[in-house]
Amino acid sequence: MAGVPTDFAQRIATMPPAPQRAFSSDNAAGAHPAVMDAIVAANVGHAVAYGSDRWTAEVQGRFRDMFGQSTEAYLVWNGTGANVMALATMVRPADFVLCTEWAHIAVDETGAPERALGAKILTAPAPEAKLHPDQIDALARYQGDMHHAQPGVVSITQSTELGTVYSPDEVAAICDSAHRLGMVVHMDGARLANATAALGGTVAAMHSFTIDAGVDVLSFGGTKAGLAGGEAVIFLNRALAERAIYVRKQVNQLPSKMRFVAAQFLALLDEDRWIRLAEHSNAMCRHLYQLTADIPSVVHQGTPVVNSLFPSVPAEAIKPLQDWSFFWDWDVTRSQVRWMTAWDTTTDDVEQFAAGLRHLLA
Amino acid sequence: MAGVPTDFAQRIATMPPAPQRAFSSDNAAGAHPAVMDAIVAANVGHAVAYGSDRWTAEVQGRFRDMFGQSTEAYLVWNGTGANVMALATMVRPADFVLCTEWAHIAVDETGAPERALGAKILTAPAPEAKLHPDQIDALARYQGDMHHAQPGVVSITQSTELGTVYSPDEVAAICDSAHRLGMVVHMDGARLANATAALGGTVAAMHSFTIDAGVDVLSFGGTKAGLAGGEAVIFLNRALAERAIYVRKQVNQLPSKMRFVAAQFLALLDEDRWIRLAEHSNAMCRHLYQLTADIPSVVHQGTPVVNSLFPSVPAEAIKPLQDWSFFWDWDVTRSQVRWMTAWDTTTDDVEQFAAGLRHLLA
Amino acid sequence: MAGVPTDFAQRIATMPPAPQRAFSSDNAAGAHPAVMDAIVAANVGHAVAYGSDRWTAEVQGRFRDMFGQSTEAYLVWNGTGANVMALATMVRPADFVLCTEWAHIAVDETGAPERALGAKILTAPAPEAKLHPDQIDALARYQGDMHHAQPGVVSITQSTELGTVYSPDEVAAICDSAHRLGMVVHMDGARLANATAALGGTVAAMHSFTIDAGVDVLSFGGTKAGLAGGEAVIFLNRALAERAIYVRKQVNQLPSKMRFVAAQFLALLDEDRWIRLAEHSNAMCRHLYQLTADIPSVVHQGTPVVNSLFPSVPAEAIKPLQDWSFFWDWDVTRSQVRWMTAWDTTTDDVEQFAAGLRHLLA
Amino acid sequence: MAGVPTDFAQRIATMPPAPQRAFSSDNAAGAHPAVMDAIVAANVGHAVAYGSDRWTAEVQGRFRDMFGQSTEAYLVWNGTGANVMALATMVRPADFVLCTEWAHIAVDETGAPERALGAKILTAPAPEAKLHPDQIDALARYQGDMHHAQPGVVSITQSTELGTVYSPDEVAAICDSAHRLGMVVHMDGARLANATAALGGTVAAMHSFTIDAGVDVLSFGGTKAGLAGGEAVIFLNRALAERAIYVRKQVNQLPSKMRFVAAQFLALLDEDRWIRLAEHSNAMCRHLYQLTADIPSVVHQGTPVVNSLFPSVPAEAIKPLQDWSFFWDWDVTRSQVRWMTAWDTTTDDVEQFAAGLRHLLA
Repeated sequence: MAGVPTDFAQRIATMPPAPQRAFSSDNAAGAHPAVMDAIVAANVGHAVAYGSDRWTAEVQGRFRDMFGQSTEAYLVWNGTGANVMALATMVRPADFVLCTEWAHIAVDETGAPERALGAKILTAPAPEAKLHPDQIDALARYQGDMHHAQPGVVSITQSTELGTVYSPDEVAAICDSAHRLGMVVHMDGARLANATAALGGTVAAMHSFTIDAGVDVLSFGGTKAGLAGGEAVIFLNRALAERAIYVRKQVNQLPSKMRFVAAQFLALLDEDRWIRLAEHSNAMCRHLYQLTADIPSVVHQGTPVVNSLFPSVPAEAIKPLQDWSFFWDWDVTRSQVRWMTAWDTTTDDVEQFAAGLRHLLA
Repeated sequence: MAGVPTDFAQRIATMPPAPQRAFSSDNAAGAHPAVMDAIVAANVGHAVAYGSDRWTAEVQGRFRDMFGQSTEAYLVWNGTGANVMALATMVRPADFVLCTEWAHIAVDETGAPERALGAKILTAPAPEAKLHPDQIDALARYQGDMHHAQPGVVSITQSTELGTVYSPDEVAAICDSAHRLGMVVHMDGARLANATAALGGTVAAMHSFTIDAGVDVLSFGGTKAGLAGGEAVIFLNRALAERAIYVRKQVNQLPSKMRFVAAQFLALLDEDRWIRLAEHSNAMCRHLYQLTADIPSVVHQGTPVVNSLFPSVPAEAIKPLQDWSFFWDWDVTRSQVRWMTAWDTTTDDVEQFAAGLRHLLA
Repeated sequence: MAGVPTDFAQRIATMPPAPQRAFSSDNAAGAHPAVMDAIVAANVGHAVAYGSDRWTAEVQGRFRDMFGQSTEAYLVWNGTGANVMALATMVRPADFVLCTEWAHIAVDETGAPERALGAKILTAPAPEAKLHPDQIDALARYQGDMHHAQPGVVSITQSTELGTVYSPDEVAAICDSAHRLGMVVHMDGARLANATAALGGTVAAMHSFTIDAGVDVLSFGGTKAGLAGGEAVIFLNRALAERAIYVRKQVNQLPSKMRFVAAQFLALLDEDRWIRLAEHSNAMCRHLYQLTADIPSVVHQGTPVVNSLFPSVPAEAIKPLQDWSFFWDWDVTRSQVRWMTAWDTTTDDVEQFAAGLRHLLA
Repeated sequence: MAGVPTDFAQRIATMPPAPQRAFSSDNAAGAHPAVMDAIVAANVGHAVAYGSDRWTAEVQGRFRDMFGQSTEAYLVWNGTGANVMALATMVRPADFVLCTEWAHIAVDETGAPERALGAKILTAPAPEAKLHPDQIDALARYQGDMHHAQPGVVSITQSTELGTVYSPDEVAAICDSAHRLGMVVHMDGARLANATAALGGTVAAMHSFTIDAGVDVLSFGGTKAGLAGGEAVIFLNRALAERAIYVRKQVNQLPSKMRFVAAQFLALLDEDRWIRLAEHSNAMCRHLYQLTADIPSVVHQGTPVVNSLFPSVPAEAIKPLQDWSFFWDWDVTRSQVRWMTAWDTTTDDVEQFAAGLRHLLA
């Protein structure tokens, strides 16, 4: 990798203006204006709490229209909560959950799944954060072994924690392998919108890698897609929803004034806004990639598929760049960082960030 | 108790207009306009997620100003979550939590505490939903008994689930008994505002039955006090906060875009709005009591202290009244119901509800 | 109650010889000689661990012969473990377990069930430690209430912690009520042998209040019945055994060199030894009752049914008596104590203990 | 690797006599005669249950004599239970436990730790089943990260699941790294005796890699060392024992008639019998290695250190050999198996087993 220029210190001192919005995370963005309008509009009079309000009824209907009349949607607070609630309806006694070594449930949830489930989260190596059906097939050796936790749930993330996506066929192959072993499949869709945008940009495209592929329970991301806060757990396999209404409360995920979460989702689902916003976010990421791909000391991992880049940059440049426009480290041993776009990232933001990189490093 | 009038059926058919806001629950109300304005105002640009935003910093400062510089405040999603998070920082291995038989944590949280804590919730008889220090003192018999879970935490609710309040001296006596046994004290303050309004209506009054009385950890209610959604866990005993930041995430209570919860709290704390709104709610409850106390078939439990009434009414009248303006049953074996005012209940609401009761029953 | 004699101090100083075996507990007794012989005999050569040995196969066959070919027996270490393992196969997510306020699982297991199950243990008032079907029927009000843990398991103890027994009809009525609500029934039979002895003294009698009455899972007590250590969990409802083999290991109840537990059970089941020993123990208890019933200051609760007495004695006499021949306090507020016979209690023991009581108090 | 001889089928048909004791596992062996004698001798009269008996008092004294007066020993049922109890006293809320990918607690306990602890078990790659201090140092990156479970406990196994041992210096380095991060160290000593035999064969040698090296809590193995059943949890760091007596019961590990476990341990500790038996077992393993090292198609992993060999043998030979004298597969993808000696393995057993291997394969 190329190093920093010889006049590096001087360049730091003369950085161009930073972008208005940094590239730290898609959850640094606020709520889309239509979502905020929906919150305000829902603040009228009284509504029975815990989901017996008209907004929740409407959003449940919308999700049934989207996924099928035999599916069920449950609104919850946040991503970790959605995943924990989903898994808590799926694990049987002594089951384990298989996911990749990068999975949010394994790495980024402070052990919440283990605490709530009392179950083992087994991680599989996955350089691209994607599970392979062979890794599920290999679990057959544990079946019936009383000394080992039993294969119960496969959890995959779409799009993944490394910005990759599973194709519909890949998800289907995973579901086939899992179902052959009597396992059920959870999809962590905290960034389902970005994956949908990348894989066709339609609800039908989303169907192809969720319900049509055999996914049983889906965490449908709202917060990163443009909400102020809110996620949905979608039971594509209704049998697993039998205890869902109790489990949601039991894992602290039952919003009291639920209309405010429901109204947000209505605005997000309107006009496929969740897909449109993710398309924009993905496009901004590609734009940032294109504007920086020729800087020798910025080494990308390849063309971005969704809304994140994981480039390596000269180690000495990381701190000055973060001070100028904040982003997160990824792997300090490789001086790798993460740049992430959001639904509200603008072309100006991208161009100003790229200009700063070029100023400092090119 | 008096029965229904002889022309009951005809009266049902000719009910006057129902109040605009029913008396079902304080969480049926929306958010106060100032709170909603604060949410909208916080929706500007990017802010680092998970609490590293300026709104959260400000609200933490406000809580420190309120409770003392050595206290710590953690924002969370909801009431069950606040209680579970608080207790999870307080129980040691093999401890139990003592509360009354009416406690929200024991009765209304679907076993969330047992699931998250893996600990016993021991309930004590309490006709008025108030724990007595003697009931704590009696736990000494369990200390050192290896066959019994150990006295760890006392959890009391202020105001209680039955609309009563503990005086500052009563809380202090409970804390003294608990601390003598090496136990720590949690206060579920989902309706702390109503208790504060009832006990003096000042922050100093609130201090008298929380930090000054020896409470260790406080669930500071926001949702029922006028937020769209949000609670705070206040560590008055900072030593217990050592693992709080991790435990919050682990029990699914870490809001991602936390600025939207923080901004709400800032609006609620401004000008002691939380107390002012609760004073109004309590006053509306007293007004409803006064307007209905002379209806022979409406048998009150006494003058309300906070914002709830638990009257018995003729059994045949319950369904028609609920159809007219919804409220919840309380104890069907005694034809007892619950009427609850909220921060936004109006005099008109009260008078119309009372007029309907009088029309039907007087 | 009569007090102590005026020459009490002198009587203390001149107590007759204490019995060789005290009346503290049936788990103070050792193993029956036939059981010990079986342990020694099983210590031959190698045997595959974890239950793949011929002793375990044989004992499983014996239990199938006893309860039916579609039942399954699992050997475990101890009583708390047996109960926890049984319940862990029975609770669904968000379920609670109903038992009496005296239940071993609620009072004497240091919260082990809550820890292992993450589930609420709900206790019902029961002056005689016996649950009533009405208390189960009343749980219907919780069904479908998302804010309350759901009725899942009823756990009863036979014979009870207070030395009472359920008749076959009483157990059947409990099972009927539970099954009507979709609940399943666990019986804690740590002293199943004593109950069997009291209710007919045959395997058929035991059937009448277990499998024939509708019990789903049975903790079959071994330790108190004459083993050095060992219990069995019997799945009378085989569907509940689906995950049993994994759950046993998961709750630390899989004996490695299982032959040593199995061999003990073989000796205990031989010639219905478990019933014969319990008949003896029960008879010794009746004998002690008869020899002390006329001492005015020893106030019995009635004729004993199984192997325990809970008399009140003068408070001043408790400590001197315990120093002479140890037993446990029961309820110090009533100067109530517990005397318990075991499989090896002799007539001499009983007569010497009674003589001491008479010397001191009569 | 060499294949099977051309007359393989004929050789199968003419195998020499199988050894009396197979090489399947050290827990296939029974109890040492002195241990069995101790069980029988302890079966005299009554003894107060749950550890208030003279045998338990004596064994606790022996362990204090062995490890120091400020240490505490708790007797438990089995290895999984010992580990779970130890860890349950060591983890704080939101902590994780680090161990190797081969650790018994991670692989062979059916998720018991996750269930009892509600905590993450994090596994590190370890080709020889030995953790390296660098792998602990690297955990510093998680400290203070609210999204990640926190470094709490390091658990190492001595001797390891792959038959390797840590030197005293290696354990000390691990403890130093752990303590620097505020972590505590657990040692799973299910085969502590074999490690002790391999590292000097004295109590002082054992001290060098346990208490002197900084280990905080030790699972002291009894079952595999020659007991019928029983383990001990030794708190070398007494502060961690504060809740031990309650936690033991809570995780189902409190033996009722504890004298029978205590008496076994007394016999095992007498004359350092646990070390002498392990020396014999280790020696038998070396003998088996020596007698088979020159068979070309038996590919050893190196000279054994303790009592297990993990050779690769021709795949076609595994089943015929197991049918002749049973042992377990280890890694079928490499036709690797495990041969394990026990305290009672004889020279004849070894020679007959080696003769069979030679007959079939050489």
